[in-house]
Amino acid sequence: MANNTLTAPKGFLAAGVSCGIKKSGKLDIGLIVCPAGATSAAVFTTNKIQSAAVQVCREHIKSPKVYAVVVNSGNANCCTGRRGIENARQMCEKTALLVAHRSLAGSRVTSHESRDVLIASTGIIGELLPIKKINDGIPKAVDKLSSSTSAGLDFARAIMTTDKKPKQSFRQFDLGSRTTSHEPLIAIAGAVKGAGMIAPNMATTLCFITTDVAIKKSLLAKALKAAIGDSLNKLTVDGHQSTNDTAIILASGLAGNRPIVSECPRYKRFAKTLADLCHDLARQMALDAEGATRIFKVVAKGAATKADAAKAARAIANYPLVKCAVHGGDPNWGRIICAVGSAGVKVNPRKLSCKLDDLTVFKNGEPTRFDAEKASKIVSQTEHTITVELGAGKQSDFCYGCDLSAEYVKINAEYHT
Amino acid sequence: MANNTLTAPKGFLAAGVSCGIKKSGKLDIGLIVCPAGATSAAVFTTNKIQSAAVQVCREHIKSPKVYAVVVNSGNANCCTGRRGIENARQMCEKTALLVAHRSLAGSRVTSHESRDVLIASTGIIGELLPIKKINDGIPKAVDKLSSSTSAGLDFARAIMTTDKKPKQSFRQFDLGSRTTSHEPLIAIAGAVKGAGMIAPNMATTLCFITTDVAIKKSLLAKALKAAIGDSLNKLTVDGHQSTNDTAIILASGLAGNRPIVSECPRYKRFAKTLADLCHDLARQMALDAEGATRIFKVVAKGAATKADAAKAARAIANYPLVKCAVHGGDPNWGRIICAVGSAGVKVNPRKLSCKLDDLTVFKNGEPTRFDAEKASKIVSQTEHTITVELGAGKQSDFCYGCDLSAEYVKINAEYHT
Repeated sequence: MANNTLTAPKGFLAAGVSCGIKKSGKLDIGLIVCPAGATSAAVFTTNKIQSAAVQVCREHIKSPKVYAVVVNSGNANCCTGRRGIENARQMCEKTALLVAHRSLAGSRVTSHESRDVLIASTGIIGELLPIKKINDGIPKAVDKLSSSTSAGLDFARAIMTTDKKPKQSFRQFDLGSRTTSHEPLIAIAGAVKGAGMIAPNMATTLCFITTDVAIKKSLLAKALKAAIGDSLNKLTVDGHQSTNDTAIILASGLAGNRPIVSECPRYKRFAKTLADLCHDLARQMALDAEGATRIFKVVAKGAATKADAAKAARAIANYPLVKCAVHGGDPNWGRIICAVGSAGVKVNPRKLSCKLDDLTVFKNGEPTRFDAEKASKIVSQTEHTITVELGAGKQSDFCYGCDLSAEYVKINAEYHT
Repeated sequence: MANNTLTAPKGFLAAGVSCGIKKSGKLDIGLIVCPAGATSAAVFTTNKIQSAAVQVCREHIKSPKVYAVVVNSGNANCCTGRRGIENARQMCEKTALLVAHRSLAGSRVTSHESRDVLIASTGIIGELLPIKKINDGIPKAVDKLSSSTSAGLDFARAIMTTDKKPKQSFRQFDLGSRTTSHEPLIAIAGAVKGAGMIAPNMATTLCFITTDVAIKKSLLAKALKAAIGDSLNKLTVDGHQSTNDTAIILASGLAGNRPIVSECPRYKRFAKTLADLCHDLARQMALDAEGATRIFKVVAKGAATKADAAKAARAIANYPLVKCAVHGGDPNWGRIICAVGSAGVKVNPRKLSCKLDDLTVFKNGEPTRFDAEKASKIVSQTEHTITVELGAGKQSDFCYGCDLSAEYVKINAEYHT
């Protein structure tokens, strides 16, 4: 099978190793290296409490060329004070040093600054990183660096926490229109982790994307922000953002395309493919959410403002009683209406309507006859769409949610500090 | 045992019967009658979608004298359009007619308007009331009216939905200070239902209070609003208000006290006892919440505004991961901090601190050593207090929450429309 991991785009090596942060012995350090240096961009959590990794990564993302991304799972390095920041810096320094010194075939690298290394952490909050174990683990990861499929898969596994499986996506496309066919192939690959504590926006989501496109840093950032905004940031599992959300994109520029330096049609083509890839990753996350068995899209229409539409959609997707009803395959639209009413948005009760997929179950504030069996079938699908019309304006927005199962509670009550 | 139900205060009769709304054959119609006429006040849901019962009760509460309260469980009569409103009016008319015509010992009643009857409904949203069954049930309830303890208990049972047990509270006190001892005894009794869909403020809470105090309507309303505000409105089970919340108080004025007509010390004594009774009812509700095994109080201090304090406290109490941690007896303060960070309130990360009961677990943005075993013991209690210091100001507020168990999901996935 063709490589569809982070090492598929030209110019990337990856590795995943175990250094003992996780007691299970599972992979817990992931490393991506771009020996030629990559243009980078990132999106971070908007939680007011931010992990040490996020704080350090926010500084390093300003660097014009990035050579590596180091990630640990099993410990979030959050609420860890000054020691936490020192530990995050140490991880970057160690990685910069080792990556620079390793003689990589074809590498132009001689020395790196730690600010050319990006970082992310995920796991338990409030415990200091076992920095000795990590310092021992990073060289192991550097030794295993490879552009193979299995190296890419190891990285995707090394970033997991309660995820049931690695989540990856891959796209190959060219920047040309139908009439211009001389554009080289571009590859984009993504790996994502996150299974709980996911809410608009992103919570405990780590997302890493590699691509070989040549593109200006500011445009890369713009495309990433838009793509995450309509995908991972639209996903809500339990209504809260984490302290550690990070989405990073690295562009090696080795595809051979004429660099994208303006918002031309070629930029749009790239941005669209990136958005499509992020959408696929978000969908995989929702389906792999802790204890989730079903996902649903909520579309809120007829809102007075875009913010109201987003708020209403999230209120429905986050409402435990709606999530439980979806889990039970129950078309309990009354709970949907109840969630809308308490969302704190403008609603016209006489124009309020609700559809499950294409089936109208509530219309203009009045109950309406519908095929109950059909409604149950719709809600029992792996994916369905809830549409509400608020009757208060013309704005709309959407988000994705998943069902709430007893398994979710089990996972999160037994995950002990 | 002395009567501690709604029929304990002088001048009240009650009943609870089954009319077949619930398939189980359990009690589903409750009736309170005050033959002498009662001064009344109420607090309603702030959900923008309000049940037909709430809409009709809002009109009727303006009546200077109320003679009855009719309640049904098993059907919320919400999102039921014009038919729903007609059905609610019909319930009030039927009750007014029957209560007026029944020859009640000592009754001064000859005829009633339906506007002198209050109404509440709870149960499934979006289905029309089985009004024929209810029309047959109301006469049965009128026939069973009694001032006995068992009649009061039947009422408390008739308003239940997923509640595991009836929840009642009773207080007896006098309005005098220590130096004045000629005040007659006053009784207050309350019955409440609600086990899920409870959030600030009140959601699917029905609360009925009877008292024999003589008091001006506007002061009764003021005392009720304050009492509910600091008790039932501080309770959050799953973060949403229902469409049907209603708290009603009836004062028969038969205790023999000099009527309370100003905010004098006697008013304050009454208001304090009422608040105390409502607090007891809220506590019972939290402990009986769907699947709940533990309750906790969240105190948010050092907030920039009172609204921020309330928002932060609720964000913690509603956060599924905090609720799961409490369920597991896990002192996972990291999740508490994460909830604070994403609450959308002003926080100073360097002054942020957290205590479990009196044990400091996080101080000034830095992890702190604490006795982990002691912390686990605190969280494993039936009740404990989480205190967070936001470091952003001087305001504080609190709320009550409960744990999230697999049982909650089971109840709400299996409750089928």
